Amino acid sequence: MNEQILVSPADLMGDGVFETLHLRPSGPWLLDQHLDRLARSAALLGLPPPPPVTPPAGQTGVMRIIYTRNLFHVGVTPIPEQVLRERRDGIRVLSAGLGVSAGRQPPWSLSTAKTLSYGTNFAARRWAARHRADDVIWTAIEGQVLEAPTASVVWLAGDELGTVPWEEAGILPGITAAHLLSLAPSVGLRPVQRMITLPELAAADTIWLTSSVRGLAEVVTLDGVNRKRSPWTARFLRLLGF
Amino acid sequence: MNEQILVSPADLMGDGVFETLHLRPSGPWLLDQHLDRLARSAALLGLPPPPPVTPPAGQTGVMRIIYTRNLFHVGVTPIPEQVLRERRDGIRVLSAGLGVSAGRQPPWSLSTAKTLSYGTNFAARRWAARHRADDVIWTAIEGQVLEAPTASVVWLAGDELGTVPWEEAGILPGITAAHLLSLAPSVGLRPVQRMITLPELAAADTIWLTSSVRGLAEVVTLDGVNRKRSPWTARFLRLLGF
Repeated sequence: MNEQILVSPADLMGDGVFETLHLRPSGPWLLDQHLDRLARSAALLGLPPPPPVTPPAGQTGVMRIIYTRNLFHVGVTPIPEQVLRERRDGIRVLSAGLGVSAGRQPPWSLSTAKTLSYGTNFAARRWAARHRADDVIWTAIEGQVLEAPTASVVWLAGDELGTVPWEEAGILPGITAAHLLSLAPSVGLRPVQRMITLPELAAADTIWLTSSVRGLAEVVTLDGVNRKRSPWTARFLRLLGF
Repeated sequence: MNEQILVSPADLMGDGVFETLHLRPSGPWLLDQHLDRLARSAALLGLPPPPPVTPPAGQTGVMRIIYTRNLFHVGVTPIPEQVLRERRDGIRVLSAGLGVSAGRQPPWSLSTAKTLSYGTNFAARRWAARHRADDVIWTAIEGQVLEAPTASVVWLAGDELGTVPWEEAGILPGITAAHLLSLAPSVGLRPVQRMITLPELAAADTIWLTSSVRGLAEVVTLDGVNRKRSPWTARFLRLLGF
């Protein structure tokens, strides 16, 4: 990100929302869903409805929308090499307790909003990197799987294609995960949203982290344990247009 | 804040640290302590040691230092009217569970760092305002008092002048609170750092929220219950040079 923008110091306090989209030759992927989520996040922060977005023409890569009380910014950057590598080769993941209770969020909780207060998300990923891992799966105090710092958790267990219910878990509603689950019946799978414990997740046939730009990253080791590679990864990537 | 600064979009993601100081005619109050905390916060985020600060000459008000991976900014703004009013008249406070466990922070926790990921802090104060209150005291799942969104909790119970131990509670180390406690023996009080439950706190003679610019704000109602005003508030404000 070499682009420079003019902001007020108040814009630097994490009090805003954002969306990250995969900008394809055909346009921003799942644009309406991302704009809906942006508006939902903004409402949770007491921001006015966001202004309309004109997608950048003739560009591909990562499209980011940033919206604060003083600023509305749309920028495009190249897809990082690491993201392409993780989409292709999978990721090593560690689980870790987030120290929060899924069912006891405070009334002002922003845990279902995509806010600019992303410090902890970055810190969790730096922690993973220090432990020779690529990413983290967060768990609640009560033991349920929540989400990853920048992705949703999706699993395949028999014919169940599952993800975590965002409202019950108090997590961000994952757009890529919801879209993939909506396609499940077309490939003979059963979409399921349910709470899952870490041992249950580890026992699934395959685990992925899903997000807009990385798409689908297969978990190849979880807490240091190697996992069998799945033929579904390539199939899902094609299904999602990657 | 009408001042505009040029930043990279990455600077808007809350991945940095800040300090807010009371800029007095004599210079920034407790400057060394704030610079120490800035360096400590920066280290927790994996940022290099911050560059030296040259305090603005001939100005008074709120001095804010902002430090991210690409930016080091020092700005001065006027003290908001509301802050002066709260220092003088006291504040109405609500308690609310934060949904976190004080003793089960994740290994990458930034809860003791003053980060730019301040979205939840603002959201908690907006929630208080919607409930006709000025501020919030956060409690842990286990029931202990933690801190306020932008302040430390201090109480007087008999001759005990108390505050919450920041490392044990996983909260920001409060500079104004620590300074006030260091002065306690000079006015015949006993400084104590200990965990305290909400009922214990409510039973104290006086409760204050302390922070650098507001200084000392006496809690005049807690959860809707009026509290007896204390002669110590004016005495402490003088002691702190307000």
